[in-house]
Amino acid sequence: MAILIRGGTLIDANQAWRADVLCAGSNEGGTIVQIGAELHAPAGATVIDAVSQYVMPGGIDPHTHMELPFMGTVASDDFYTGTAAGFAGGTTSIIDFVIPGPRQSLMDAFHQWRSWAEKAAADYGFHVAVTWWDESVHRDMGVLVHEHGVSSFKHFMAYKNAIMADDETLVNSFARSLELGALPTVHAENGELVFQLQRQLLARGLTGPEAHPLSRPPEVEGEAANRAIRIAQVLGVPVYIVHVSTKDALDSIARARSEGQRVFGEVLAGHLVIDESVYRDPNFTRAAAHVMSPPFRSAEHREALWRGLQGGYLHTTATDHCVFCASQKAIGRDDFTKIPNGCGGVEDRMAILWDRGVNTGRLTPNEFVRVTSTNAAQIFNLYPRKGTIAVGADADLVVWDPLATRTISSSTHHQNVDFNVFESITVRGVATHTIARGELVWADGELRACRGAGRYLKRPSNPSYFEAARLANRRREVQPVQRVK
Amino acid sequence: MAILIRGGTLIDANQAWRADVLCAGSNEGGTIVQIGAELHAPAGATVIDAVSQYVMPGGIDPHTHMELPFMGTVASDDFYTGTAAGFAGGTTSIIDFVIPGPRQSLMDAFHQWRSWAEKAAADYGFHVAVTWWDESVHRDMGVLVHEHGVSSFKHFMAYKNAIMADDETLVNSFARSLELGALPTVHAENGELVFQLQRQLLARGLTGPEAHPLSRPPEVEGEAANRAIRIAQVLGVPVYIVHVSTKDALDSIARARSEGQRVFGEVLAGHLVIDESVYRDPNFTRAAAHVMSPPFRSAEHREALWRGLQGGYLHTTATDHCVFCASQKAIGRDDFTKIPNGCGGVEDRMAILWDRGVNTGRLTPNEFVRVTSTNAAQIFNLYPRKGTIAVGADADLVVWDPLATRTISSSTHHQNVDFNVFESITVRGVATHTIARGELVWADGELRACRGAGRYLKRPSNPSYFEAARLANRRREVQPVQRVK
Amino acid sequence: MAILIRGGTLIDANQAWRADVLCAGSNEGGTIVQIGAELHAPAGATVIDAVSQYVMPGGIDPHTHMELPFMGTVASDDFYTGTAAGFAGGTTSIIDFVIPGPRQSLMDAFHQWRSWAEKAAADYGFHVAVTWWDESVHRDMGVLVHEHGVSSFKHFMAYKNAIMADDETLVNSFARSLELGALPTVHAENGELVFQLQRQLLARGLTGPEAHPLSRPPEVEGEAANRAIRIAQVLGVPVYIVHVSTKDALDSIARARSEGQRVFGEVLAGHLVIDESVYRDPNFTRAAAHVMSPPFRSAEHREALWRGLQGGYLHTTATDHCVFCASQKAIGRDDFTKIPNGCGGVEDRMAILWDRGVNTGRLTPNEFVRVTSTNAAQIFNLYPRKGTIAVGADADLVVWDPLATRTISSSTHHQNVDFNVFESITVRGVATHTIARGELVWADGELRACRGAGRYLKRPSNPSYFEAARLANRRREVQPVQRVK
Amino acid sequence: MAILIRGGTLIDANQAWRADVLCAGSNEGGTIVQIGAELHAPAGATVIDAVSQYVMPGGIDPHTHMELPFMGTVASDDFYTGTAAGFAGGTTSIIDFVIPGPRQSLMDAFHQWRSWAEKAAADYGFHVAVTWWDESVHRDMGVLVHEHGVSSFKHFMAYKNAIMADDETLVNSFARSLELGALPTVHAENGELVFQLQRQLLARGLTGPEAHPLSRPPEVEGEAANRAIRIAQVLGVPVYIVHVSTKDALDSIARARSEGQRVFGEVLAGHLVIDESVYRDPNFTRAAAHVMSPPFRSAEHREALWRGLQGGYLHTTATDHCVFCASQKAIGRDDFTKIPNGCGGVEDRMAILWDRGVNTGRLTPNEFVRVTSTNAAQIFNLYPRKGTIAVGADADLVVWDPLATRTISSSTHHQNVDFNVFESITVRGVATHTIARGELVWADGELRACRGAGRYLKRPSNPSYFEAARLANRRREVQPVQRVK
Repeated sequence: MAILIRGGTLIDANQAWRADVLCAGSNEGGTIVQIGAELHAPAGATVIDAVSQYVMPGGIDPHTHMELPFMGTVASDDFYTGTAAGFAGGTTSIIDFVIPGPRQSLMDAFHQWRSWAEKAAADYGFHVAVTWWDESVHRDMGVLVHEHGVSSFKHFMAYKNAIMADDETLVNSFARSLELGALPTVHAENGELVFQLQRQLLARGLTGPEAHPLSRPPEVEGEAANRAIRIAQVLGVPVYIVHVSTKDALDSIARARSEGQRVFGEVLAGHLVIDESVYRDPNFTRAAAHVMSPPFRSAEHREALWRGLQGGYLHTTATDHCVFCASQKAIGRDDFTKIPNGCGGVEDRMAILWDRGVNTGRLTPNEFVRVTSTNAAQIFNLYPRKGTIAVGADADLVVWDPLATRTISSSTHHQNVDFNVFESITVRGVATHTIARGELVWADGELRACRGAGRYLKRPSNPSYFEAARLANRRREVQPVQRVK
Repeated sequence: MAILIRGGTLIDANQAWRADVLCAGSNEGGTIVQIGAELHAPAGATVIDAVSQYVMPGGIDPHTHMELPFMGTVASDDFYTGTAAGFAGGTTSIIDFVIPGPRQSLMDAFHQWRSWAEKAAADYGFHVAVTWWDESVHRDMGVLVHEHGVSSFKHFMAYKNAIMADDETLVNSFARSLELGALPTVHAENGELVFQLQRQLLARGLTGPEAHPLSRPPEVEGEAANRAIRIAQVLGVPVYIVHVSTKDALDSIARARSEGQRVFGEVLAGHLVIDESVYRDPNFTRAAAHVMSPPFRSAEHREALWRGLQGGYLHTTATDHCVFCASQKAIGRDDFTKIPNGCGGVEDRMAILWDRGVNTGRLTPNEFVRVTSTNAAQIFNLYPRKGTIAVGADADLVVWDPLATRTISSSTHHQNVDFNVFESITVRGVATHTIARGELVWADGELRACRGAGRYLKRPSNPSYFEAARLANRRREVQPVQRVK
Repeated sequence: MAILIRGGTLIDANQAWRADVLCAGSNEGGTIVQIGAELHAPAGATVIDAVSQYVMPGGIDPHTHMELPFMGTVASDDFYTGTAAGFAGGTTSIIDFVIPGPRQSLMDAFHQWRSWAEKAAADYGFHVAVTWWDESVHRDMGVLVHEHGVSSFKHFMAYKNAIMADDETLVNSFARSLELGALPTVHAENGELVFQLQRQLLARGLTGPEAHPLSRPPEVEGEAANRAIRIAQVLGVPVYIVHVSTKDALDSIARARSEGQRVFGEVLAGHLVIDESVYRDPNFTRAAAHVMSPPFRSAEHREALWRGLQGGYLHTTATDHCVFCASQKAIGRDDFTKIPNGCGGVEDRMAILWDRGVNTGRLTPNEFVRVTSTNAAQIFNLYPRKGTIAVGADADLVVWDPLATRTISSSTHHQNVDFNVFESITVRGVATHTIARGELVWADGELRACRGAGRYLKRPSNPSYFEAARLANRRREVQPVQRVK
Repeated sequence: MAILIRGGTLIDANQAWRADVLCAGSNEGGTIVQIGAELHAPAGATVIDAVSQYVMPGGIDPHTHMELPFMGTVASDDFYTGTAAGFAGGTTSIIDFVIPGPRQSLMDAFHQWRSWAEKAAADYGFHVAVTWWDESVHRDMGVLVHEHGVSSFKHFMAYKNAIMADDETLVNSFARSLELGALPTVHAENGELVFQLQRQLLARGLTGPEAHPLSRPPEVEGEAANRAIRIAQVLGVPVYIVHVSTKDALDSIARARSEGQRVFGEVLAGHLVIDESVYRDPNFTRAAAHVMSPPFRSAEHREALWRGLQGGYLHTTATDHCVFCASQKAIGRDDFTKIPNGCGGVEDRMAILWDRGVNTGRLTPNEFVRVTSTNAAQIFNLYPRKGTIAVGADADLVVWDPLATRTISSSTHHQNVDFNVFESITVRGVATHTIARGELVWADGELRACRGAGRYLKRPSNPSYFEAARLANRRREVQPVQRVK
C-alpha cells in the first residue's frame, strides 16, 4: 500500500526543499515513485502530514553486532529486536559483522550469520572479518565478493589470543582486498599493549571497570590506526577505520587524507557524548554497562571527534550496537577483562547526532544526512538505492520533528537490554514516522516492525574511489633499470 | 528550442547513471525538464548523441577578472570574449569581482561592473571587494546583500599602497559579513612583506620576472592565509581562501578545519600544473606571461594542492582568469613589479582538471564534478539552480568525451590573448558540446556564444553553513560574573 | 670577602657533580675562582654548608618590567625592590624593557630607563622596544647595538592606539635587526582583534575581569605568533616569542623549528600553573589582580606549555614581573580594559619551576638549569659569564634545598605588592642561599640586597646562531637570469 | 707522554674560547689535565700548534657494526680497521651492537662480541639486540645492565624470518628496559610490509638494486617509528630511534616530543647527503654498494633531516658503518633481497657534518659538537667522561682546520672496503690531529692507531632523563574505585 508524505521539507546531502513524497508499498517494490508539489494520494494510500517536519533518508548504521556470541555469552538484541529498535529512531538499514573464530572457514561463518539474520525487520548487509590467514581465506574472500555481495572486510587489531589479526594477516588481507575492490575496515587498538596493560593493572589490584580505559589509553588506538593506515598507503588500498574514539587516531586519518590517501573514518554516537568518568561510577553495574572497546574518552577527545565530523575527517556515524544485560556484564565483576564488551545505541544514534550536532551548529541538516546515511551508502556501495531521496531509491525515510523533544531511557526504549548509555538525555528532534522499503514501521510512538521483512543487501565491489586508487597506483609504478654488463 | 541529450552517462557529485536529458530552450526557461530512459525528442528539438560520453553540470569558475582595469592597463578578455571562451571548455558560469579603488564607493563600483558585464555570454555573479573601511562601506555591504544578491566579499591582503586591506579593514569587514550572512573571501599574501622583498630584490639588481616568485615566497601566502583564518575563527564567521597555491596555506586550512572551523579553499588550474621554473625562461615575453600573484610554485606545492583537493581541504577550482597580451606585459620589462599580474585559463580549467585529476586517479569523476561546479554552487549559494543535474535546474551542461584528446594552444584557443599557460599540453577528455541555459553554445568545435545572453546571478545570503556557524557562536557565549560588593 | 660553598652537588645544564665552589667577593671581581674537591677556605671567607643541597647558576629572568609607567600608573616594584625580591628566590639577573612611547626617541627612552635602573640590587640588561618606525629609529637601533650593548629589540603586536607595532614597523625592524645581529622579540597578540573584541564585550555588558580573557582568546595569540615567525622566516632573521601562553603559539614555534628556523620561545611561571578561572572570581580585587596579557589559560594550554618546555620548543622561563597594588587595579573596576595589566613572580619563578617541573618528572635538574638560566644566557649572549658554574664566570649562584618546603604568600614575600598569584602554593625546593657577583645576598631567610649594587649588562650582538642564520640566507640566494634579446 | 695543544679555539656544546689544552698520555690516565692560557709544556710533551684551528671533543659514533656476520657474509671492517679509520676523521669512540641470533642466549652473544672487539684501537661500548623473548632474555637483560655496563638495547622491527622483533617482544623488552633504566633503541621499518613488497617486486621482475628502495618506502619507516614511539609512550619509557631517514619518522618524533615524551632520534651522515637515485645507477656494483636499510632517500627527506637536526628533533649523528666489498655485494646480483645490507662512513661523518652543516649555516659549531659527540655521550650515559672538553674528561680530541679541504675517496680512505658512498665529495673542514685517551693517533695524514688499545666502555643505567620519566609515570597513576555493595 502506498504512503504519501505531505507538506514536509525534504533534506538530503545537498539541499533542502519543500515537496511531497509518494512511496510504493513493499509489494509494489518499496521504492520512492514520485517527488513533487501537491502530489495526489492514490486510493488507499496512507497519508502522513509532515508540515513543519523534515523528511530525510532513513539512517544507515554501518556497525552493529546483533546476537553476537562474544566473551562467553551472546548479545541480547537479536537481528529482529535490534533492527526494530532502529526503526523507532529512524534507522532503516544496518551493516553487521560476520566474525569467524580462529581458523574457522569464512564461508561457514558467513552462512551461519546469514541464517541468524533472517529474522531481521530491516535491510542488512555484512562485513566479514578476517581473523587469520591462509590460502583458503584468500580464496573465500573472492567467493564472498563475487558471489555474495560482500564488499568490505573487517580486521581486529585487538583481542589477542582470540580474533586479533597480526601484521601478516593485515598485510595479506589488505593486498587481497585491493585485488577484489573490497574495502578493508579496521578495529584499531594495539592488542599486544592492551594485553600487557591488562596484566599490569590486574597485578596492581585494579580489577574493576575503572581499569578498563586504563588498559586501552588513547595512544593504543592512535598507534593501531596509524599502522593500518600506513599499511593501506603502502599497498595502495583505501581503508576505513571503525569507531574512531581519539584525537590520536583522528590525527592519523587527517594526516593520511592530507597526503591524498583514501581513508574513511567512523565515529560512534556514544563516543561523541559520553565521558570516561562513567567507569569510576561506584555502582559496578552502571560502570560495567559502559564497558566497550574502545572505551569512552575525555572531553578533549569528544570535542576532536565532533570537529572531525564537521571538517570531513570522519564520514559515518554508527553505534557498534552490541548489548549485554547486567547479568551478563556481571561475569566480569572481579576481573574487568572478563566483562563482555559492548553498548547499545541503534535506536538513539540519529537523535543524539541531531540534538548535539545540528542543534549546536556543529552540523548543518545536510551534513547530518551525510553522516547518518549518505556517506555510509556511498562508501559501502549502496548508493543511490540507499542514502538519498530520489525517485527509484528505496523508500527508506524518516519524518523528523525538529521541535519535539523526548528523554531517552531504558524504561521506554525498544532495545532488548536493561540499560541505556544515553539515559536521561533529553533530545530536541524526534523521529515521528519511519518508512522502510515503503512500509510504515514506526508512527507516533507505535512500532510496527515485521519479523523477517528485512532483506539481505548485496553490495557490489569496486566503488568509484577504488577505480581512482588503482589509477593512482599505476601512476606510481617504476620500471626496471637496464644494467651495463 | 529544446535539446535532447541522448544515451550519455550522467555524472553529478554523487553518482553516475545512464539517462537521457531534455532541456528547455532559453525562451522556455532554459531549465532541465526531464531526465530518464529513452526520452522522446519534442518536435524541433536538437538531439545530441552522447553515447560513450559523460554528461556533467557545466563548470562554474568562481574567480575571474574580465576586462579588469589593473596596473595601468585593462585585461584583454572582456565579459563577452571571456565567457564565450569558457563555453568552449565546458564552463557555463563565472563569478567575477567588483574592485572599488581606494575610497571609491562600493555602490559606484558595483554599478560600473554591472554595466561592463552586460555583454556577457554566460551567467555571472559578483563578489565585491572591500578595500578600505568607513561607515559607508559598512552600509553599502548591507545594500549589496539585501538588494543586489551579492553574498560574498573579497579582501586583498596584498597590493600595498593600492587595494590592500589592513587588519582594521579585515576585522571590521569580517564582522559585518557575519551579521549579513555573506561569505568573506581572501587573497592571502602579506603585502608588507611583498613590498619589502620587492625593494630588496630591485636593490640587488634582480629586476626580471625571475624576481617575481622571490618577492612572494610561500611563507608570504602561508602567513596571510593563517591570519585571515584566525580572524575569521575569532569572530566566528566562515571564510574562503582564494587561489591557494602553497602547502603553507593549505596547512592552515587543514588545521582550521580540524578545529571545526568552516573554512573553504580554492585552487587554480594553473597552480596545479605549472612549475615555478617558468619565471627563469630566458625569453622575457614567456616569463612575463606567467606573472600572476600568487606565482606558480614548485612540485612540492603542486603535489600538496592535488592532495588537498582529493582530501577535501580544497573545495573549488578556478582560474583567476585575467589576461594581458605581450605588449601589456612589456610595461614591466625593466621592473618586474610593474608587469601586469594575471594569466588565463577559463577555457581550459575543466580539461586540465580531468586530464591531470581524473585520468591519474587523483579524483573520481564525481569528485571532478564537485570541484568544478557543485561545491562552488553550494558555497556561493547558487545550488541547486547550478551545480547539479536535476529537473528544474538550469540547463547548464557539458557533454564530455573521455577518450578524445586535444592539444591546448594559444593558436587555437578562444581567449582574447596571445599566450596560453597550458600551451602544448595534450589532454585526454574534451568538451564536445556545451549547453548554457538550454542553448547549445559549443558543438564539436563551433562556438555559438551570444553576446549579452548571460544573466546576472543574484545569490541569496545565509547559506546553511552560516546558520550552523551562528548556532556554534551562540554555544560559546559567556555570561557576566556577579561580583561581591 | 670570599665565599666557600662546601659539600654541595653542583648542577649545570649538562651534569651533576659533587664539588666545593670558591667565589671571590665583589671587590675581587665577584667571579668563581675555584671548583674542586675539599677546597680550602681563605681567611675570612664565609663558608656555606651545602651538604644535601644543590648548587646551581643563579636564575636569569629575561622578562621584567620594574617601575614601568603603564596604563596611567607605575608598577609598584622598582628596580631595587624587584631585584631584591628576586634574590630571595634565587634569581640574580634580569633583563628589563625600555619602552619608548609613540614617536619618542629610542635613545631618550633608553637613557631614562638607565637612570631608573641605577638603584638595582642585581645585574640587569635591557631589551629596547620598537613601537614605531622612521629613519631615526633605524639609526638609533644601530647606536644601541654598537655603543650600548643592547642586542635584542621588543615588538608589541597588541595595545592598539598605544605601543602596537604594525606590519610595516615589524618588517622594517626585523630587517634592521638582521643587519645588526640583534634578536627581535615579540609580544604576540593581534591588537586589532583585541580591540574589536573589547568593544563587542563592553557593548554586551561584559565589563568585569571575566571579559579580559574573552578579549584575548588563544587564537589571537596564535595568529600573531605565527605572523611574527613567518616574517622572520621570510627575512631570514632569528626571532624570540615572549610569554607564550597557548598551544596555538607553541604549534607555530614547533612548525617553524621543524622547518629549520631559529625560533625561541619563552614561558612565564604563571602561565604554567594558574588557571583561567581566576577571572571569574566573584571578588573583583582577586580577579583583577590576575589581569595581565596574555591572560592565564585553561589546563589544555598549561599542559602544552610544560610539554613544550620539556621537548625543547620553549627555551626560557620568565615572569613578565610588573606588579600593581589593589588600589591601582581598581582603576578598571567598571571597565576591564582599564585595569593595569601585570602580575608578579620574580621571587617565585625558580621554586614554581622546580616544584611543578622537577618534582613531577617534567624536567630533569639539568633541564631546570637550562630553562631558568643557561638558555637565557646563551640566547641573549651573556654566556658563559652568566648561566653556568665555571671558573671565571660571575659568582651568581643559588644553594637549593630540594627537600625543604615553603608556602608562597603575599604576607611573607619580598615583592612590593599586596598580592601573589601563587598564594598558598606549597613548594618543595627552596633557595637557602643566593650569591650575586660574589656577595651573599640571601641566607636562610635573611635578605641582604644592596641598593645600587647591580651593574648594567652590555650584551654583544651576533651570537653564534646569527652567524649560522646568515650563512643559511646566503645559501638561498638566487642569481638573475640572462635574458635573450 | 703528554700532549699540549696550543693556541686553538676550543669548541664544546655551549661555547667557543681560546685556550691551550694539556693531555696526559694513556699511561698517566689519558685525561685532560689542564685547560688555560699559555700553558707550560711538560718535558717530552708533544706540542700541537692549533692556531687558526678548532679543538673539539672527539667524535662518538653511536651506531656501527664492525665485523658483523650478516646475510651470509661478514662486514669487512673489523674492530681494529674500523676504529682506526674513525681516528682519521676525528672519531674516537664507537658504540657497536651485539646481535644474538634467533633463540641465541644474550650472554653468549655478548661474550662473543666482546672477544671480537678486543682488537679495537678506539674505545667502544655495546648496545645488545633483543631479537626474541622468553624469561631468559628478561633475566639476561638484567645481568647485562647490572654487571656489564650495557645500558641500551636494540630492537629490529625489520628482517622478517631473521632478527625481527614482533610486538610481543617489543612490548616486553621495553617494559623490562624501563625497570632496568636502560634505553630501548629501535630500527624502525615494518618488516612484514618489506617482506610483502619484496615478493611483489620480484614477482614483477624487479630484481636489481633499484627495487631495494621500492621495497622500503618512507611509509614503512614512518609506521614502525610511530609504533615504537607509541609503545614507549604507553609504557612510560624513553626511546631512541636509530637511523631516521624519512620525514615520516621525523614527524612521529616531533609529535611525541611535543607531547612531552622523551624520544631521541639519530641520523646517519649518508642519509643527510646521498640521493635515492644511486639505486638506478646502470652499474650494478655502484648501485649495490649503496644498498643499506633504510635506503637513501629523496631531497625532500634529506632536507627534513637537516631541519630536524637543527631544530632539536634529531640528537645524534652516526653511520651504521657496516661495509661489504663488491664481491660480497655481488651475492645479490640476481636478487636484490640478497645483497648484504650496509655502507660505510665512520671515517667521514665528522667532515660531512661540518661541510654540509656548519659551512651552510644549518648548524653552529657548538651544535656540531652536540650532534657529533655531546648528545651521544649524554643519552648513552658516557658524559662527562666523553663528549666535552674539561679537566678530568678523557683526552679524546680532534684538532680541526676549518679552512683546509680534502676530497673523499675510497682510494685514499682508511676503511677496509673498496667503495665510499661519499666518493668525490670535497669537504672544507679537516681533522688535522686526533687524540684518543691522550695518545696522538692521527697527525697530518699519518695514522698511528694501536691494535687493542681501545677499552670497553661500561655505561651506567638510569641517566637523569630516566629518573624524570619515572617521576612522570608516578604522576599519572590512578587509584582503584571503592564500589558500593
